[in-house]
Amino acid sequence: MTTLIFGHQNPDTDAITSAITWAEFQRQSGNTDVEAVALGTPNDETKFALDTFKTQAPRVIDAANGADVMLVDHNEAQQSVADRKDSTIVSVVDHHRFANFETAAPLFIRAEPVGSCNSIIYKMYKENGFEITPQIAALMLSGAISDTLLLKSPTTTDLEREILPELAKIAGVDLQEYGLNMLKAGTNLAAKSDLDITEGDAKSFDMGGKTVRIGQVNVVDLEEIYARQADIEASLKAESERNGYDLFLLVATDILNSNSTGLAFGEGKDKLEAAFGGKFDADDRLALPGVVSRKKQVVPPLQKAFEA
Amino acid sequence: MTTLIFGHQNPDTDAITSAITWAEFQRQSGNTDVEAVALGTPNDETKFALDTFKTQAPRVIDAANGADVMLVDHNEAQQSVADRKDSTIVSVVDHHRFANFETAAPLFIRAEPVGSCNSIIYKMYKENGFEITPQIAALMLSGAISDTLLLKSPTTTDLEREILPELAKIAGVDLQEYGLNMLKAGTNLAAKSDLDITEGDAKSFDMGGKTVRIGQVNVVDLEEIYARQADIEASLKAESERNGYDLFLLVATDILNSNSTGLAFGEGKDKLEAAFGGKFDADDRLALPGVVSRKKQVVPPLQKAFEA
Repeated sequence: MTTLIFGHQNPDTDAITSAITWAEFQRQSGNTDVEAVALGTPNDETKFALDTFKTQAPRVIDAANGADVMLVDHNEAQQSVADRKDSTIVSVVDHHRFANFETAAPLFIRAEPVGSCNSIIYKMYKENGFEITPQIAALMLSGAISDTLLLKSPTTTDLEREILPELAKIAGVDLQEYGLNMLKAGTNLAAKSDLDITEGDAKSFDMGGKTVRIGQVNVVDLEEIYARQADIEASLKAESERNGYDLFLLVATDILNSNSTGLAFGEGKDKLEAAFGGKFDADDRLALPGVVSRKKQVVPPLQKAFEA
Repeated sequence: MTTLIFGHQNPDTDAITSAITWAEFQRQSGNTDVEAVALGTPNDETKFALDTFKTQAPRVIDAANGADVMLVDHNEAQQSVADRKDSTIVSVVDHHRFANFETAAPLFIRAEPVGSCNSIIYKMYKENGFEITPQIAALMLSGAISDTLLLKSPTTTDLEREILPELAKIAGVDLQEYGLNMLKAGTNLAAKSDLDITEGDAKSFDMGGKTVRIGQVNVVDLEEIYARQADIEASLKAESERNGYDLFLLVATDILNSNSTGLAFGEGKDKLEAAFGGKFDADDRLALPGVVSRKKQVVPPLQKAFEA
């Protein structure tokens, strides 16, 4: 049976492109019976990247049905394919913390605390002397731009600062111009439903026994979010009730000014205030100055507040 | 504070030497504030290796006291330092399954399903162009010989078949002669107490909610074990009662003929029979023909039997 390669649920650009670039890595390793798939459809930003570089979106699956799996850009069970326990995890390439991850047998893992999953895959192409075609470079580039907000997120490491210009050159694009166009393509709120905004990029975390859902949406002007705040809050409430989230936080991130605002529904809004040292204002918005990274600036302080 | 590098509790030769070779890797990377330590004293086999190559045994610790830690040759919490939750895990290099492993932040992990932890560390020296001195080669060699029973265990991969002759050459020893001498040094039962035999190399596993303890002892003649069977069984019983193990299995392995015999105390002896398709005989011994690897031939079938 073909080995399935996929990133996390609600895939972002790094999750989708990592699956494609890791599948190509496998093929160059001589392992041809692999397929890059996805646990969801590409978002607008990812569509822009795939369209620009004439790449087909991976087939969407909702179950692995016992196939061997290779995970990219995630490891936690609740962010993975629903029936993962029926599959053998052959390998993991990831740049997130490890949790809710257990295997019956030894496996291949390559994890590094760098800015994107594609950064690690890029290193492995180099180590193995594999060819990086313009299309593969473009996909790696897009994933890394997305995850590092074009090198502006605090998750950025020297590795991305070194390889993004090189990948842009191989891909034949101007890094700044392509990067900003791609990021902006993901900020078209007019094209997003309320549910797209709240759930489109959301991930679940277990924090001190509570299920905390954290979504993130990129914008070029936070006023666009404020104009739809009542509807967005209704969506946070409805999804929390439907799915049993204890707290649902939406982080709206201004990618031009590197600031965010939090909107939230559920218990533990005091935990949010404690975590970020601020207060929800009269409009029920929590200012998150300088915050752009869920992984580095939102999850760790919130986890700490919930476990205090 | 100095970063501590260590392998699992009840350290075997691969656990002890991996800590030393990974510490040297860190130093060659420019990370000098590290110390190779151990969660126990070297066993007779490891002592032989350290003595042969004039290497001091790592300092034994029973707590990390909040220091950053780098794990080698293990990842599961119950096999690690007791106060690990107070430490940040900076990196893991391992060749075991992953379980009971959770971090708050992204980290470096290099895991591969190969025969020894030192095999992975060797690859990384090569990838980075680092120097492998005769002493470092000898320590890597010793760890890999121990874990693969001199290339005879089914955990052996092409990687060990390739690198062991090369490491022996750098270390200036004959692979077969040194390997057999080292393995035999670990089989001197006369020098071991009953507790050394049962607990000396034991690891705990959670199987279907039960705590299963599995020890292993290498011998050149299984009769040596049978001669002490009553005392060994008393030790299995005493340790189970003291530590709350649901089942304690001792695998006595004949390293010359690649066979094992199981002795056990506790509930679930039927699970053992189901797992290995045999019966405890009139002397309460379970023949395990061809079994030499706890990781590959004991844990997986037993886990399956307990979770059935």
